[in-house]
Amino acid sequence: MTIRHTVVFTLVHPAGSPEEAAFLDTATETLSAIGPVRDFTVSRQVSAKSDLQWQFAMVFADEADYAAYNDDPAHVAFVANRWVPEVDAFQEYDFTPR
Amino acid sequence: MTIRHTVVFTLVHPAGSPEEAAFLDTATETLSAIGPVRDFTVSRQVSAKSDLQWQFAMVFADEADYAAYNDDPAHVAFVANRWVPEVDAFQEYDFTPR
Repeated sequence: MTIRHTVVFTLVHPAGSPEEAAFLDTATETLSAIGPVRDFTVSRQVSAKSDLQWQFAMVFADEADYAAYNDDPAHVAFVANRWVPEVDAFQEYDFTPR
Repeated sequence: MTIRHTVVFTLVHPAGSPEEAAFLDTATETLSAIGPVRDFTVSRQVSAKSDLQWQFAMVFADEADYAAYNDDPAHVAFVANRWVPEVDAFQEYDFTPR
């Protein structure tokens, strides 16, 4: 069963800053290149009912692909080197068909 | 610019109950029939990092279609008659392309 993995987040960087763009560019390049990741997207969160500003979303074919992504050295390094220092707040959700 | 409107929520009904199924069925039938709504989906939220259990998602072509949905009598009635009494907690997010 496919799993749509999402995270909604806010960066420590000012909106529109070069640091914000660099984070989003690097994340896209790094995460979309990890083997099991399908349909990687970056979206702007625009509802006034949430303070979070961005979303990453990706699709995995199954739980094994999701686990492989989590354990991939490129993912682990991205989390340690970019996510943790540059993300101020976030919320994860994973979706499967009803 | 297309807008992906989403809401993640938990019902007052027990998981797997007929009342849960009836809510999801009625929501799907009612909301997907509103003119500007595209690609209506019901998904199960499965990440342990959130307590919310379900997601509705839909796509609007633009802000005018989103506003038309919000003001549609079928949407207003669904919110008053089903959403408010049967939803325990929720969080909305709207996404646009980066």
